[in-house]
Amino acid sequence: MQTGSSKDQAIGSQGFLTKLVEDIFEKVFVRSRDRESKVIEFKPPADLENILDLTLKEPTEDARLLDICHDVIKYSVHTGHPLFFNQLYGGMDQYTMGGAWLSDALNTSMFTYEVAPVFTVMEKYVVKKMIGLAGMEFGDGVFCPGGSIANMYGLNLARCKKYPEVKTDGMSRYASLCILTSEQAHFSIRKGAAFLGFGMKNVVLVKCDASGRMLPSDLENNINRLQAEGKEPVCVVATAGTTVLGAFDPLDKIADICCKYRIWMHVDAAWGGAVLLSKEHRILMSGIERADSFTWNPHKMMGALNQCSLFLTKHKDLLTESHSARAEYLFQQDKFYDVSYDTGDKSIQCGRKVDVLKLWVMWKSKGDNRLESAINNAMDCARYLSKIINSREGFRLLLQPEFTNICFWYVPLSMRNEEENDGWKRRLSQVAPAIKERMMLEGTMMVGYQPLGDYVNFFRVVLSNLDITEEDMELVVNNIERLGKDINPQ
Amino acid sequence: MQTGSSKDQAIGSQGFLTKLVEDIFEKVFVRSRDRESKVIEFKPPADLENILDLTLKEPTEDARLLDICHDVIKYSVHTGHPLFFNQLYGGMDQYTMGGAWLSDALNTSMFTYEVAPVFTVMEKYVVKKMIGLAGMEFGDGVFCPGGSIANMYGLNLARCKKYPEVKTDGMSRYASLCILTSEQAHFSIRKGAAFLGFGMKNVVLVKCDASGRMLPSDLENNINRLQAEGKEPVCVVATAGTTVLGAFDPLDKIADICCKYRIWMHVDAAWGGAVLLSKEHRILMSGIERADSFTWNPHKMMGALNQCSLFLTKHKDLLTESHSARAEYLFQQDKFYDVSYDTGDKSIQCGRKVDVLKLWVMWKSKGDNRLESAINNAMDCARYLSKIINSREGFRLLLQPEFTNICFWYVPLSMRNEEENDGWKRRLSQVAPAIKERMMLEGTMMVGYQPLGDYVNFFRVVLSNLDITEEDMELVVNNIERLGKDINPQ
Repeated sequence: MQTGSSKDQAIGSQGFLTKLVEDIFEKVFVRSRDRESKVIEFKPPADLENILDLTLKEPTEDARLLDICHDVIKYSVHTGHPLFFNQLYGGMDQYTMGGAWLSDALNTSMFTYEVAPVFTVMEKYVVKKMIGLAGMEFGDGVFCPGGSIANMYGLNLARCKKYPEVKTDGMSRYASLCILTSEQAHFSIRKGAAFLGFGMKNVVLVKCDASGRMLPSDLENNINRLQAEGKEPVCVVATAGTTVLGAFDPLDKIADICCKYRIWMHVDAAWGGAVLLSKEHRILMSGIERADSFTWNPHKMMGALNQCSLFLTKHKDLLTESHSARAEYLFQQDKFYDVSYDTGDKSIQCGRKVDVLKLWVMWKSKGDNRLESAINNAMDCARYLSKIINSREGFRLLLQPEFTNICFWYVPLSMRNEEENDGWKRRLSQVAPAIKERMMLEGTMMVGYQPLGDYVNFFRVVLSNLDITEEDMELVVNNIERLGKDINPQ
Repeated sequence: MQTGSSKDQAIGSQGFLTKLVEDIFEKVFVRSRDRESKVIEFKPPADLENILDLTLKEPTEDARLLDICHDVIKYSVHTGHPLFFNQLYGGMDQYTMGGAWLSDALNTSMFTYEVAPVFTVMEKYVVKKMIGLAGMEFGDGVFCPGGSIANMYGLNLARCKKYPEVKTDGMSRYASLCILTSEQAHFSIRKGAAFLGFGMKNVVLVKCDASGRMLPSDLENNINRLQAEGKEPVCVVATAGTTVLGAFDPLDKIADICCKYRIWMHVDAAWGGAVLLSKEHRILMSGIERADSFTWNPHKMMGALNQCSLFLTKHKDLLTESHSARAEYLFQQDKFYDVSYDTGDKSIQCGRKVDVLKLWVMWKSKGDNRLESAINNAMDCARYLSKIINSREGFRLLLQPEFTNICFWYVPLSMRNEEENDGWKRRLSQVAPAIKERMMLEGTMMVGYQPLGDYVNFFRVVLSNLDITEEDMELVVNNIERLGKDINPQ
């Protein structure tokens, strides 16, 4: 039993943690504010294995362990740095961090009200808020471990709505079920089709327009063709903010078609969902209120920490009907409180990490308006960067961006004013990887690249850090030009 | 650009977080050391919604937000408290907390070496260590968002090993596939069968002995019966540490049968896996080295924070073969480093939270030996609690525990020395819920209860907190006796 000085003792016994927190403030947070610091101190895998003392066997003194943690910090990517544009997340907000740290400290799981009373009711409020922002009158939702699994929930609810007996009987009598999504959709739809037993070949890819948006005419043609072949489209997955190009499928037109053919409409808005907070830009998702379900990852554009991802649906009880197993040891019906708050059976998980607090604390602090301004700022920066790219020699936009994915080629001096034949394109495909290598070794900035269909390797700057400025956009082109102008691929 | 006093500025701009961290040290960690503090300050759901200001719309000042965070702490369950025995996790270790907080601060995702260099190589080391503890010479593994999804990986690899074409073609030609597991297995096997398209009715439940261990004879009988019926058993899921009783299925005998009939053997060791660290107790999992795959959750008995769960397999490339989608925008093959380190395609997730550091820091600090001692201590406490229960009037063990699940009834004064007929059992079923209600409202302790088969509601104390003592075990029985002795159910 502790009395008297127990508080000091308890705090004192956290000596390692206290020191590590100081290091995090000094070595992680400071670097996330300092544009002149490195985004990454790159080492090849084999070198890193040599530098870090990773073996597990003997106990380690605190001082030595803190040294290793410094190396962990030193050689990790600083995703909070303003010049990290490599993935669909980034930034460093103290409120979401506070929510994440408090969730860790309270270390519980979302299965029942009994063990997660605050977080269960908090999840209810956040789900209601987000359902409302989508313009749906009512609905249901649950935090998921990432957008891929949220998209899989969409696929599962679609088939359970049509054929509830699949849950007990399996897919063997449903050879004809298929899923339609665009050729620009995220790979999780194909992964999900494999995992859920539809099979990857039963994902039909609908053509897109030049901007990467699903063509409603091709969607309808495919539905008619599939039905004529005896197939049964059970789910259309539209995308609001595609991964590479940031395109928004025309949700209203897709909803018309889903309505006409009575097909479940799921929207993967993992990346684009944040525009619902912006009065200026929410038009990009016009029609979302007609979807049956959607995915929204606040750890992307909204700046919440990884992982923070929701599956949301307008169908009130279908999550529980589709996923529940009613385990008696967990979901006892003779508890003394209102067991409708035991919401864990909505999930395919048993233990489920508390992901709501890191979003809620940030949202509560900023309010709708400051989130809206930050999202508008990211959109403004995207326009500004496009403008610079359009006017700077050697830079070429793939297309005018709808969202904050800015895709472009950089043509080095040696390749300008030449005939742009196949050989030239093959050489161009080597430029982005070469610049990326220099960029990683220098550590000043991180930007991704990829090929796409007929397009050879191009850069994709994705803006999700809510604290970026127009000056940062100038650094992007200046850095790429400095690193790449002398490249002469053969 | 920042110069000079930029460091102070950056730290200073984290004012909210600094204050919240102080509160976490004072209000969460202290309570986790003080047995006289409450485990829970219980409020019914409707009251809690009134107390907490959960609505999201307007921005909130830091001072007010900190007040709300205090309420979050006040009304949350303190799972680090020594008298929290309600779930298969608990305790409060500063090293795992440090690893979790640093992961949050470095906010990245496990898809590629490019964005998670340190954590990618660290995962490789931890997987190798755990594969080695299971006595396997080589293998592969990946952190998953919880044991349920890890078990689903087992089901998916089992079917992909036998029928790789399921990934592309789906389950429609495989009506005969079925899964065998024990009647005491975790519900995630049935959830997984539903989600993956096997169907819940294709999970065949094998009978257990009186201790809750799968009966190998009934397993073999079922396999023969199913094959005679034209069914094809594709996976046997054994359990090492069942959820309610803590039973260990006889892995060696099950491996003999799986070997004979060439069926994939997956072991759900989410709960029991930690015994592999104990020279004294690892005999409980004898035969694990013969399994094809297993689940192990270090966030349970090992004391890592939620969520920390692994899927492990002896088959080297099967995770990637079963789950990969080879997205070009993420897994470019023309990168300048060894892309075999881009391990994200092993997972069904795209973004995957960093769960390795909270385990690694703790393990590196304690070493194998201190973890072993802590696990042995929990086993000793379980034996000690069983001994007290056996000798204390009114308490009855369900069975002698194999692990740290201690299951027992408490018979109040009013019900002793009566004929134990159906009416008596009906009354007994009301005792645990009534005591639980008093316990929750008082807040001193948390213990779960459930019925099981013919057994009416009984208490289940689960010991996973590695800092518990024999004195804590005495508090368990004293508290239950104090709260329950005057109960007189009708």
